[in-house]
Amino acid sequence: MPSHHGTSSRSSLPLWQDDDGGSHASNSPTAMNSENFTLSEKTVPASYVRQASEARRGHERLIGRLLEQGKCPAEGWSEATVELFLNELAVMDSNNFLGNCGVGEREGRVASDIVARRHYRLSHGIGRSGDIAAVQPKAAGSSLLNKLTNSLALDVLKMAGVRSVKSCFVVPMATGMSLTLCFLTLRQRRPKARYVIWPRIDQKSCFKAMVTAGFVPVVVENVLEGDELRTDVEAAERQICRLGAESVLCVHSTTSCFAPRVPDRLAELAVLCAKYDLPHIVNNAYGVQSSKCMHLIQEGARVGRVDAFVQSLDKNFLVPVGGAIIAGFDEAFVEEISKTYPGRASASPSLDLLVTLLTLGAGGYKKLLSDRKGGAAGQGADHRRARVSRVYVALRVLPVPLPQRGGRRGRHPRGRGAVRQTAGQVPQDAAEGGKCG
Amino acid sequence: MPSHHGTSSRSSLPLWQDDDGGSHASNSPTAMNSENFTLSEKTVPASYVRQASEARRGHERLIGRLLEQGKCPAEGWSEATVELFLNELAVMDSNNFLGNCGVGEREGRVASDIVARRHYRLSHGIGRSGDIAAVQPKAAGSSLLNKLTNSLALDVLKMAGVRSVKSCFVVPMATGMSLTLCFLTLRQRRPKARYVIWPRIDQKSCFKAMVTAGFVPVVVENVLEGDELRTDVEAAERQICRLGAESVLCVHSTTSCFAPRVPDRLAELAVLCAKYDLPHIVNNAYGVQSSKCMHLIQEGARVGRVDAFVQSLDKNFLVPVGGAIIAGFDEAFVEEISKTYPGRASASPSLDLLVTLLTLGAGGYKKLLSDRKGGAAGQGADHRRARVSRVYVALRVLPVPLPQRGGRRGRHPRGRGAVRQTAGQVPQDAAEGGKCG
Amino acid sequence: MPSHHGTSSRSSLPLWQDDDGGSHASNSPTAMNSENFTLSEKTVPASYVRQASEARRGHERLIGRLLEQGKCPAEGWSEATVELFLNELAVMDSNNFLGNCGVGEREGRVASDIVARRHYRLSHGIGRSGDIAAVQPKAAGSSLLNKLTNSLALDVLKMAGVRSVKSCFVVPMATGMSLTLCFLTLRQRRPKARYVIWPRIDQKSCFKAMVTAGFVPVVVENVLEGDELRTDVEAAERQICRLGAESVLCVHSTTSCFAPRVPDRLAELAVLCAKYDLPHIVNNAYGVQSSKCMHLIQEGARVGRVDAFVQSLDKNFLVPVGGAIIAGFDEAFVEEISKTYPGRASASPSLDLLVTLLTLGAGGYKKLLSDRKGGAAGQGADHRRARVSRVYVALRVLPVPLPQRGGRRGRHPRGRGAVRQTAGQVPQDAAEGGKCG
Amino acid sequence: MPSHHGTSSRSSLPLWQDDDGGSHASNSPTAMNSENFTLSEKTVPASYVRQASEARRGHERLIGRLLEQGKCPAEGWSEATVELFLNELAVMDSNNFLGNCGVGEREGRVASDIVARRHYRLSHGIGRSGDIAAVQPKAAGSSLLNKLTNSLALDVLKMAGVRSVKSCFVVPMATGMSLTLCFLTLRQRRPKARYVIWPRIDQKSCFKAMVTAGFVPVVVENVLEGDELRTDVEAAERQICRLGAESVLCVHSTTSCFAPRVPDRLAELAVLCAKYDLPHIVNNAYGVQSSKCMHLIQEGARVGRVDAFVQSLDKNFLVPVGGAIIAGFDEAFVEEISKTYPGRASASPSLDLLVTLLTLGAGGYKKLLSDRKGGAAGQGADHRRARVSRVYVALRVLPVPLPQRGGRRGRHPRGRGAVRQTAGQVPQDAAEGGKCG
Repeated sequence: MPSHHGTSSRSSLPLWQDDDGGSHASNSPTAMNSENFTLSEKTVPASYVRQASEARRGHERLIGRLLEQGKCPAEGWSEATVELFLNELAVMDSNNFLGNCGVGEREGRVASDIVARRHYRLSHGIGRSGDIAAVQPKAAGSSLLNKLTNSLALDVLKMAGVRSVKSCFVVPMATGMSLTLCFLTLRQRRPKARYVIWPRIDQKSCFKAMVTAGFVPVVVENVLEGDELRTDVEAAERQICRLGAESVLCVHSTTSCFAPRVPDRLAELAVLCAKYDLPHIVNNAYGVQSSKCMHLIQEGARVGRVDAFVQSLDKNFLVPVGGAIIAGFDEAFVEEISKTYPGRASASPSLDLLVTLLTLGAGGYKKLLSDRKGGAAGQGADHRRARVSRVYVALRVLPVPLPQRGGRRGRHPRGRGAVRQTAGQVPQDAAEGGKCG
Repeated sequence: MPSHHGTSSRSSLPLWQDDDGGSHASNSPTAMNSENFTLSEKTVPASYVRQASEARRGHERLIGRLLEQGKCPAEGWSEATVELFLNELAVMDSNNFLGNCGVGEREGRVASDIVARRHYRLSHGIGRSGDIAAVQPKAAGSSLLNKLTNSLALDVLKMAGVRSVKSCFVVPMATGMSLTLCFLTLRQRRPKARYVIWPRIDQKSCFKAMVTAGFVPVVVENVLEGDELRTDVEAAERQICRLGAESVLCVHSTTSCFAPRVPDRLAELAVLCAKYDLPHIVNNAYGVQSSKCMHLIQEGARVGRVDAFVQSLDKNFLVPVGGAIIAGFDEAFVEEISKTYPGRASASPSLDLLVTLLTLGAGGYKKLLSDRKGGAAGQGADHRRARVSRVYVALRVLPVPLPQRGGRRGRHPRGRGAVRQTAGQVPQDAAEGGKCG
Repeated sequence: MPSHHGTSSRSSLPLWQDDDGGSHASNSPTAMNSENFTLSEKTVPASYVRQASEARRGHERLIGRLLEQGKCPAEGWSEATVELFLNELAVMDSNNFLGNCGVGEREGRVASDIVARRHYRLSHGIGRSGDIAAVQPKAAGSSLLNKLTNSLALDVLKMAGVRSVKSCFVVPMATGMSLTLCFLTLRQRRPKARYVIWPRIDQKSCFKAMVTAGFVPVVVENVLEGDELRTDVEAAERQICRLGAESVLCVHSTTSCFAPRVPDRLAELAVLCAKYDLPHIVNNAYGVQSSKCMHLIQEGARVGRVDAFVQSLDKNFLVPVGGAIIAGFDEAFVEEISKTYPGRASASPSLDLLVTLLTLGAGGYKKLLSDRKGGAAGQGADHRRARVSRVYVALRVLPVPLPQRGGRRGRHPRGRGAVRQTAGQVPQDAAEGGKCG
Repeated sequence: MPSHHGTSSRSSLPLWQDDDGGSHASNSPTAMNSENFTLSEKTVPASYVRQASEARRGHERLIGRLLEQGKCPAEGWSEATVELFLNELAVMDSNNFLGNCGVGEREGRVASDIVARRHYRLSHGIGRSGDIAAVQPKAAGSSLLNKLTNSLALDVLKMAGVRSVKSCFVVPMATGMSLTLCFLTLRQRRPKARYVIWPRIDQKSCFKAMVTAGFVPVVVENVLEGDELRTDVEAAERQICRLGAESVLCVHSTTSCFAPRVPDRLAELAVLCAKYDLPHIVNNAYGVQSSKCMHLIQEGARVGRVDAFVQSLDKNFLVPVGGAIIAGFDEAFVEEISKTYPGRASASPSLDLLVTLLTLGAGGYKKLLSDRKGGAAGQGADHRRARVSRVYVALRVLPVPLPQRGGRRGRHPRGRGAVRQTAGQVPQDAAEGGKCG
């Protein structure tokens, strides 16, 4: 069985994990500020300038530590330090090089001052045509921003409970489209696969993520245990056996959800994936703020197989809508996903995440998580009824035919809302193949 | 075969095209400002206040005209008016409702002040899970921003030469990923299709756009006419015939490119598509600024079939990297694409485009286009050599096997750089089917 | 001798105190927003627009209440509301009128965008050549800003303990220069006066305030009572008698100071001023944050005479250095001071104060005061030694001759630091005049 | 009679004039950026980082040249460089020192984020209690801002035509109040003086500037020569002789004015001042933009005596209202004025001027001047009638008695508008003293 782990040389993702730190160059650019501080002494007494330059070193040390460790700082930075840093990044990009305004197609030109300012003059986006996580020759500042943000995101995912996560990157797409990207990446590994095994969760965009990628979602209905709707792991295995593992793209599980649905039995699904050599993609949309969701992913990766887990930026990190983090336990696979994105991409969600994490610091982020824990509990109750009915209605109108559920009708407590499915899509004889017996 | 033109009721895309649109309401909210202006008269003489309120009406008239016509204003707005308008949009979103800061998961919360400010407190993103062009109940301001931007984009595309374009929308993805979205949408219409007919253009992200969507690019080499590399329309038709039209997803043509490659023979390809009832997707990456490229698209749609054309935001409109406009001549198909995007999306590229168009105005944008025309001409020459060799190298390393070109080897002036292709991917017998004779 | 209370018609200072102020106008400007909201319904469902326009009314009601009452709002405003309001003010100023960019000397033009933005495009300053508190015909917004700020400042002074204060205005000058302005105003009322009776306080700028205005400070040394240096009221009266009341410009007392100096016996000095019909100017530099200082002023005005009291903006309101509030118990006198300032003035300190008070709200400001109370107590002790010795040194080098203290040498516990004075300046026989004896 | 030129050691005004530059320290702070750039090489290829650090050096060189020369840069800086520099200044101030948020009265704290941002976190103001041009120990950045601005202002005054100006400083007060400060400074040198010789100019704030300072303006009516109202130098001399030079504080002349009034005969007045050893203060309110006004001042200083000339910031430099530059030909006297201002002061006008000059550059400022020249010419005509009548009305209501003009009634072409004056104020026998014969 071929490993899903590649052997890529990984030159493009963050290097902060490495302990040997790389080139501690002495080909350093010259000590600019020291010259300018000295010039300041013509005007302001040397002792005041010395104190001020000491103070600047304070900010620089923070930035230096960030660059060295690639980790979310323990304490949040002041807005002054954050903006100082963003300005430093901006002057590293070629659109802000002085005397660089000749004719022709200069990269990164921006027509509106309002727009230039709101992006802190960082206009090159992230990535290259080949890889959304790659560095750009003309945009060292934007590239650093991109790498740093990914590195801090990795740090926060570990901190939030998925300690063995190996690699991740921020994409300027919402969770649904990011899941689509994961499925499209897997297609290249599993060209014969047509189905995605999907324990039912009534969120329209998750469903669309599979359909848009061109796959047929195989809905596995949940079972009612007490008050809760829980994953029917046996039913999932039956579907895999029925369809044949090679025609299954992956198992697509979910952590964060609303009652009565509870998070999927992730560990058991992960074991199933390992058993059948199936990829496992986890929709962890709002799960970073939940220690339970994060623990499930960590546990899944420990006992079985989890290839990637995807989380939204907005609710988890309180930034504007439109970004996600794609993370995984195998650097090569995560890199493969990042290389599937065709072209450069907006740096805006990365910038928002970086600023937010620097401003909050690890401490502030933990506090935010614990503050929301209380709120989320109460809210769960509030949303219970509203959500369930709303999404059932939503799913009912889906235009795409779903494969038959194999006679499990009526198990669902709200059977009236069950999705109509056409049987013809799924070959009945597919169940004969694989290890199933 | 069903028409590719749908009959959707199109409630979600801009309505400014409608002529009967007029202001139906008299259930208007109350005249707030007039009250506050009156209160101001306690402090400042009534005549000054009257003059000031007249002046405010000037700004309001600009905003009113924008809302009424949905068109790029003739003259650019001052930054003061633009920011006034953005502030107005922001207070329409529920995250900025007063007294709305109770416990629980309020939508659109933002942790960092820096982040909130740089988005003008518009944090809900655009679209809904069902449709990136749809309005959000909790975010009337962001929804209006989204609709308006799409409407202005449509206006500018018309102004730039594609007069009969019917619908478009901005996506927070670069051109490549936007093309991928178009291909994924077509897959649902043409489930049996596996190939994309692609007159060769050496841009990595265009190639990846097809591969990522799960399709096999069928490269049609260009022919050398004088100094120029031009589309081999006959070769394209031969491929269609060889593969069978129903196994072809679409023709994927390109307008903007660097010498010696010239824009595709779009009209002839469009006629070909009409003849074989094939979709036609145009990569117009940097073409909005070129009256020639825009004319080709307009002409193609007139004499044949063009389903969608995709253009980048950054170079065409001088905004930061990361957005694109997907446009077409059939509202239903454009809406279908917008509904394929799973989930909400970042409003950042839309905001950038809106601000830029309002600031420049139609006049300013036209001037920008004509200024760049001169620059672009000289630049073409500069880039000629560099670009050609660079992208050949890039394509050489692509890991995905391409279908055989059918013995046309050696026609390309730089044959040494030709892409290696494996024949096995494309069924030889496919050529028998279709109308080809 | 004429009363120091004038009979000015006071058309220029805030009118919020008046009860009959109400909204007289029905010549209101038209309901702009309602039209634009209606236009929005072409795009976004009417129900969402209605909700958004309701939400806007929330912000407008806050602004309306501010305009109506001229008082610090109970709760602080969000930054969104504050910036909305500042934008509204800006569009009322003629430099932001549309189509108003013809040739010639347009008022309020600003060359740098950075500068324009940081002032929220409010560039006309405050006041007119005749009166720093007057409204400007071309700048209704800046005028409103000026009036409102003065009105809020008055409200806060009342709230902080000086309940019977009648009028005040913000000046873009520090406390020292503001005191100078008060002394220069008094000069016009008391053309023969040459001396200012000044219970010693070792702050250089207070001393300079008198000297710069052209007056001779008559230093009244404090007496040691227990640990504290307290006002020698009898000595002050002796000086008045010796010099003759008509040659005394005013008594210049101080509230906020560092130990061992304690606030002046303000009530007793106020009674003295009433007895000799002398103006009384109080340096209340950092006293707004001290309920004790504010109580002393209120009590002084109740039992005797206080003409004006001056407080710094920076420490009292946590804004950048450079502004002060001049306040008093007689509107006519305060207006007289405001009319003494020749020319228009910077609106920057007013803008800072307005934004700060709107952001904090009355509640936030009170909390700030009580938070600082704790800190200030500890600090007093810390500064005790350092301050006393530092300022003694400072005073010793003052170049201006002081009048003789009349043989009171040695009373001061740190006599070695006493200021050298020349006798010749003060006529010995002056003591015979007045009511003294 | 002692010269009005002092021998002060001038430690507080800009040192850029000096050639020996002072401490070229090698106790420089360490090469911070080089370390951080090196750290960046862990992430981004060293060659890109090297290019970026080269680019940063471009900005640093601009800043270095500014610090070294203290001159307006030839070409304007980009907003990116300007904001980079302001951020650097901010981190030099103690309120932005990290870890400096202990209890107690920390200097420079700002409550509102809006306020902090709009001042670029520079909150200490300028000057110290002893001198508005002095440096502050806790605010090296603000001090540098202050010094630099004054140095650039000096450079621009020279560039605009007053080549031999020696020293100047920016005050956060309008022209009128700045003139008042000059008069108050002179009072300390000329304690017996009561009168200011003032060739009539119908601007209310100039008149008030003298009255507020406690002096009696002696109006010298202009004479009609052809179309123009010109200075009656002989009448001025008669008044000096009549009053006695020692009772005259200074001559107060005016450059910028509206037709039919033309700029004063500055050279002749300057010669008069030299003859009678009288200070000469020039109101150059809007004159920096006029090469004619600047030439008059330069010429006056060359042939006679000019002590100080005062110009407004707003119209001359297109910044918001509220600042002025006080300049002179004797460093000691200018320093004396700066030391007369009691207390620290707002840095806001200095910040505006600095940003404007850096953004425009010398070239941009010259272009602005020449652009306005055209506009101003046309405007003169427009305002001719309106202004004359308006200000006559204004002067007529002035409450302060003016000294008799000595039988020159009726010379003024608009005699009906002449100011009523009471004779009693000016001693008739004063004319006997001095050198007058």
